[in-house]
Amino acid sequence: MDSSSLPILQPYVDRLQAQMLDDLCTTMPHLTELYQYYVRLHSKRLRPVLILLMAHATNGLGSAWSTKEHPQGTDEDDTCCIDHCGLANVILPGQLKLAEVIEMIHVASLMHDDVIDESPLRRGAPSAPARFGNRESILGGDFLLGRAVMLSASLGDLEVMSEVAGVLSTLVEGELLQAQKGVKSTGDVGTSDWDAYLDKTYMKTASLFARALRCTVILGGATKSDPLREIATEFGSQLGMAFQIIDDILDFTGGDAMGKPVGADVELGLATAPILFALEEDDKMQPLIDRRFRDPGDVQQAIQIVKDTNALARSRTLASVYAQKAYDALGSLPASPAKTVLQCLAMGVITRDH
Amino acid sequence: MDSSSLPILQPYVDRLQAQMLDDLCTTMPHLTELYQYYVRLHSKRLRPVLILLMAHATNGLGSAWSTKEHPQGTDEDDTCCIDHCGLANVILPGQLKLAEVIEMIHVASLMHDDVIDESPLRRGAPSAPARFGNRESILGGDFLLGRAVMLSASLGDLEVMSEVAGVLSTLVEGELLQAQKGVKSTGDVGTSDWDAYLDKTYMKTASLFARALRCTVILGGATKSDPLREIATEFGSQLGMAFQIIDDILDFTGGDAMGKPVGADVELGLATAPILFALEEDDKMQPLIDRRFRDPGDVQQAIQIVKDTNALARSRTLASVYAQKAYDALGSLPASPAKTVLQCLAMGVITRDH
Repeated sequence: MDSSSLPILQPYVDRLQAQMLDDLCTTMPHLTELYQYYVRLHSKRLRPVLILLMAHATNGLGSAWSTKEHPQGTDEDDTCCIDHCGLANVILPGQLKLAEVIEMIHVASLMHDDVIDESPLRRGAPSAPARFGNRESILGGDFLLGRAVMLSASLGDLEVMSEVAGVLSTLVEGELLQAQKGVKSTGDVGTSDWDAYLDKTYMKTASLFARALRCTVILGGATKSDPLREIATEFGSQLGMAFQIIDDILDFTGGDAMGKPVGADVELGLATAPILFALEEDDKMQPLIDRRFRDPGDVQQAIQIVKDTNALARSRTLASVYAQKAYDALGSLPASPAKTVLQCLAMGVITRDH
Repeated sequence: MDSSSLPILQPYVDRLQAQMLDDLCTTMPHLTELYQYYVRLHSKRLRPVLILLMAHATNGLGSAWSTKEHPQGTDEDDTCCIDHCGLANVILPGQLKLAEVIEMIHVASLMHDDVIDESPLRRGAPSAPARFGNRESILGGDFLLGRAVMLSASLGDLEVMSEVAGVLSTLVEGELLQAQKGVKSTGDVGTSDWDAYLDKTYMKTASLFARALRCTVILGGATKSDPLREIATEFGSQLGMAFQIIDDILDFTGGDAMGKPVGADVELGLATAPILFALEEDDKMQPLIDRRFRDPGDVQQAIQIVKDTNALARSRTLASVYAQKAYDALGSLPASPAKTVLQCLAMGVITRDH
């Protein structure tokens, strides 16, 4: 999943990282430190990598491409179009900027989440609030959001701008939905719990993937009726669901590899896929969910029930269904190295361990 | 300063409030409560009122107006164009939406500020974090920002979009500048303190006024070379400076009228205009500034020094200079009721007591 496994993209990822630190450059040294800390240490860079791969896999195919070769790239410098592995000139400057915008929004949401959840760790190192304090983390997140909106406005495409605004808005609504489940005093068990979980998963994770990849092909020249838009959106949406469900499984199995304690989501009172599958096999989960795992020993008992049932295997199967749909979504794209890597990524999500 | 003193605008302000609560409508009842709490109780609605007045005072004057009568209003419903006091059809739907966007950004910044500053009170009532908790206040602010960006994208004007992004970005940079002064261990006294204070004041307050009013005339049809753009920007910028300096004075004199304890800014370690003027007359202020008023009795001593010197009067004079510049900025506009109200507002800022 790491960009290191995708040497084809390394030059872009390097450039992206440099450009991002450059765009976040501020005259305030302690802030620069905060961004560098998150941007360098705390991100898998999955989202920008997906954008770059989708650009590789689809640029040139769009219906507008033949008449307008480089839609967002003509008036900017084109030094990011690096000839690598024979894939020359295929990532447009606007797409690289989009990757930056999406990563900034993602990192901002991590900073705010860590304040809200009072998380001491993020990928094995102290979280931003633990290291820099709540004030810096809230402001740092706000600053990233501000810069992301500025950058996306500079792309000069109102449709992309609206999608980016939608990313921001939906991300927060997902977090709010999660918080709302949190304040619910007793659970309406059954379908509604699953609905809420899947809605939250779409809003907190999959929607960003879907919109980011849709924007990638829009910037690549896919007009409104171009099927590329639907392909990119579907791939992102299904991959995002698979990715988040695996993330929720790793809360039970990840441990050190995740850089945070096992059961951190349970500690937050969240009923994710493994909990909901376990509930279907063991009624003892119900009172724990109802009191949000708050009594002493609840978290450990919930983890044990999950491990004693088929909950993890069933969660993995659910993630596989989404991953397969993501894989299939790209079926009609012509063969290319980037398409292959995207499809491998989709299937690889299922076996990731961090 | 309150909209109640401007009956001419009441129908617009009522509509704005209804529209805002409508646009923030969510399926999450506790969140709706949070927004209503801030939107209804905690805002003077100064920013939207200024936008509506500027629209009144300038619509029809822009260079693009004669050729394109209602630039942003043609494809939307025009029920907001209320005939009132003979000023028919002069506020465009896009301008009303802009007022909403700017107020949402302002309210979001209040919510985050109250978390960051750990403020128990906002305008005499419990602040959002005090009443709803930090989690809800951070997420609530993020949600408002997301909705504001969505709404501004729907205005369909990339230039306005960029300005709104700039508002967001600069607001946070101002807050960060203030926080940075906070972590500075010893003060470089003199000019640099004033520079930092005036920069922070511009970024935290005046920039939003300036950009919001610039967007108002852009939406009203002022093309790039139209002097209306400069007039609106200058008025907003100067008024914003005056407004914030008076706000800083009220920290020493406001008390109950401000709905927060006297010296709240000093408690936060901030060296505002009254503190900096007092320092020019009394060296005893220096060590207090250097240790950010942290020792027991520091805040009370600082307030006393401010009161014993001419600091408040000199601060008021400084605010008057900015207010006068705001007044003068509108000099070349043709006479109109809205122009008069704007100019009265500028001079009225000096005497406001809450």
